Amino acid sequence: MRAVDIIMKKRAGGELGRQELEFLVGGYVKGEIPDYQVSAWAMAVFFRGMTPRETAALTEVMLNSGKIIDLGDLPGPFVDKHSTGGVGDKTSLILAPLVASLGIYDPMMSGRALGHTGGTLDKLESIPGYRTSLTVEEFKKIIAKDGFAMTGQTSDIVPADRLLYALRDVSGTVESIPLITASILSKKAAEGTRGLVLDVKSGSGAFMKEFEEGEKLARSLVDTGAALGLKVTALLTDMNEPLGNMVGNFLEVEESIDCLEGNGPADLMEVTLELAAGMAVLGGKAANSGEAKKLCEKTLAGGKPLELFYRNVESQGGSAKEVGELRGKYRSKIYAEIKAGQSGYISRIDAWKIGHAAVQLGVGRNRTGDKVSPTAGVQFLAKSGAKVSAGDLLMKVWASGDAGLKAALPQLEQAVEYSDVAPSHKSLILGEVS
Amino acid sequence: MRAVDIIMKKRAGGELGRQELEFLVGGYVKGEIPDYQVSAWAMAVFFRGMTPRETAALTEVMLNSGKIIDLGDLPGPFVDKHSTGGVGDKTSLILAPLVASLGIYDPMMSGRALGHTGGTLDKLESIPGYRTSLTVEEFKKIIAKDGFAMTGQTSDIVPADRLLYALRDVSGTVESIPLITASILSKKAAEGTRGLVLDVKSGSGAFMKEFEEGEKLARSLVDTGAALGLKVTALLTDMNEPLGNMVGNFLEVEESIDCLEGNGPADLMEVTLELAAGMAVLGGKAANSGEAKKLCEKTLAGGKPLELFYRNVESQGGSAKEVGELRGKYRSKIYAEIKAGQSGYISRIDAWKIGHAAVQLGVGRNRTGDKVSPTAGVQFLAKSGAKVSAGDLLMKVWASGDAGLKAALPQLEQAVEYSDVAPSHKSLILGEVS
Repeated sequence: MRAVDIIMKKRAGGELGRQELEFLVGGYVKGEIPDYQVSAWAMAVFFRGMTPRETAALTEVMLNSGKIIDLGDLPGPFVDKHSTGGVGDKTSLILAPLVASLGIYDPMMSGRALGHTGGTLDKLESIPGYRTSLTVEEFKKIIAKDGFAMTGQTSDIVPADRLLYALRDVSGTVESIPLITASILSKKAAEGTRGLVLDVKSGSGAFMKEFEEGEKLARSLVDTGAALGLKVTALLTDMNEPLGNMVGNFLEVEESIDCLEGNGPADLMEVTLELAAGMAVLGGKAANSGEAKKLCEKTLAGGKPLELFYRNVESQGGSAKEVGELRGKYRSKIYAEIKAGQSGYISRIDAWKIGHAAVQLGVGRNRTGDKVSPTAGVQFLAKSGAKVSAGDLLMKVWASGDAGLKAALPQLEQAVEYSDVAPSHKSLILGEVS
Repeated sequence: MRAVDIIMKKRAGGELGRQELEFLVGGYVKGEIPDYQVSAWAMAVFFRGMTPRETAALTEVMLNSGKIIDLGDLPGPFVDKHSTGGVGDKTSLILAPLVASLGIYDPMMSGRALGHTGGTLDKLESIPGYRTSLTVEEFKKIIAKDGFAMTGQTSDIVPADRLLYALRDVSGTVESIPLITASILSKKAAEGTRGLVLDVKSGSGAFMKEFEEGEKLARSLVDTGAALGLKVTALLTDMNEPLGNMVGNFLEVEESIDCLEGNGPADLMEVTLELAAGMAVLGGKAANSGEAKKLCEKTLAGGKPLELFYRNVESQGGSAKEVGELRGKYRSKIYAEIKAGQSGYISRIDAWKIGHAAVQLGVGRNRTGDKVSPTAGVQFLAKSGAKVSAGDLLMKVWASGDAGLKAALPQLEQAVEYSDVAPSHKSLILGEVS
């Protein structure tokens, strides 16, 4: 077998077999195949795509490149959620304790903020003492005890994805649906989950701007998941406006607690409950989404998810008491406000602009490895649909530094779009693929 | 400027500018841009192509990566020929002294045999003492004296092409018309020629099997040449059968001398005279191809081309006397014959099969760096159109080793195609692009 023949087969639109992908991608991880062949292959994949069977084979090759967590000691069911990334998206922090309260184990491996999107690990780490670098043994122990655990990906989990992603990033081959599919599913399969609800976002604040792109990715994820024996459903959701009223690290922890206490904002709760219902159905706790949603609402109201959230904070090194004390106060001293520039209805707060401003504020990062601030962020006092008068307070803004604040403020101001008429209310749930 | 943005621009079908290509390809030659970005870009070029302006810019970037030979001391005109490669194609050895006799300087830099195609340098080196690694000074001196010189590409001429070709070879990106165009034209422009006649071959023994592919390449070469200020015309010729009656290294030197003496086989002379006429027109020695062909025939009959050929042999380290003594005798001792397996007309001798058999015999090589034999090869006693009886001698075969001979004989036998009726005579000149 020669790598160049495999590349040329893909270049011609052929379907690569498991052995060919193992030779090329497995060989790359072992250092036997050079990066210049893998990047040329990735570009050919960008143009030619992959069949579902081929994508599944690639996912398996990547999955088998590292350690696979075995949760077989626990009775299950195991269901996780994955989002393609957005602004203000803190659903993971609410979903994990919620579905754990239903008796579903959620082995949640998450990522960090990058570019304009936030990251679950950064949010959790804003809780003083909270550790997101669990060993596999700790991860399994906490799942057994609390029903879920939240950790970062260790270096021995799917090393192929780390290598391949870094290469795609510099070779212009990130935006390939089969490669994105294999990246997501290999990591999720490696964490030990058997069911997966995907939140595939489209809109200005998502990686995919167009609904149709999101739909294609969702179809690829569901079909490839099925080929791998994973139960996968995908929700297509709108990401044109930040989700909820908080964008920031500790700010989003706070808003998650609000939700667990029954005081979450409507848009955030709509998406959270739809995802939770999907997880409940995959976990066999309800026959359909409608039934599942009622069960989730009742469970939230019962208070167990809130209790499990705090229990997890303690399990992972934080203090529930300290979180309570910091609530409403843990804010940077560098502060400003955005006021309405005109009277009328707010028609949209552009998620893309907010996400980029948040990086300036210190919430996110442009480069892997940059530090983020726990106490920076934005709180929205009005979002789309609100009627405002010129001068009304729209946003409270906290920044990690003066220069960042100065850079962010005009972007935040420009993110607000006005209309003379009340915008119609639209559901954030755009569709489902299963 | 970032390489990844340039790759993504090309991926999206954009036209890259001179500066972008200089950054990427020029940077690659300088060791500033890694190969994994260049191979991904080359694959994007494979799929998206390049505009004529873009191909010209790439050619210039490549040309400027190394030394450019300046023949400005000589009065000119300077016209060279380039063939895309075939089996039995020894036209260069005849053309250079022929056009030099017309007062056209031909600065000929040639290549070596690779795969099933032969190489001019290997043929010339079968002449004992003949040197094909001339310094630039020697090259210029011999051109000034004899009107032409034949040399290999030195390492300081178009280093970008050497690097890029090696990378394309292992990344599955060889078959891209703009990349082939830039490779050919950058080398030809660097040797100092101002006019170029291309022999773009298609058929079983050519790199391009289909006429339409050859036509596209010819169009790209002519248009890009024009953008660079080179006068380029391209002949489209048929390469389904070996050209002439000899395939081998010294065998082809001998057949070239036959042609210069007026005893060349019709097929070889047809292509040679058409190319020579093209060169004569570009060199301003005739107004049109018909007139030019008559001039070339007359010049050949006058004997000056033969005299210049021998003069060049002496200039480059060989002995005209020794060539004369070796003629008809310089053959390997490992010998066999192919006889007609049936009676009838020969409809074709498949150039692809002959070319591959010739590699087995020791004429060519599968890998760069392999040694070739001066005395191996095939002499055809009958070609397409000949009427033969079962048992008639069709080929004399000389091999550098017994194993190679054994491997080649069945391939040579299978290369002969028979027909019950006389095949119609077809011209080898399929078209012209200018």
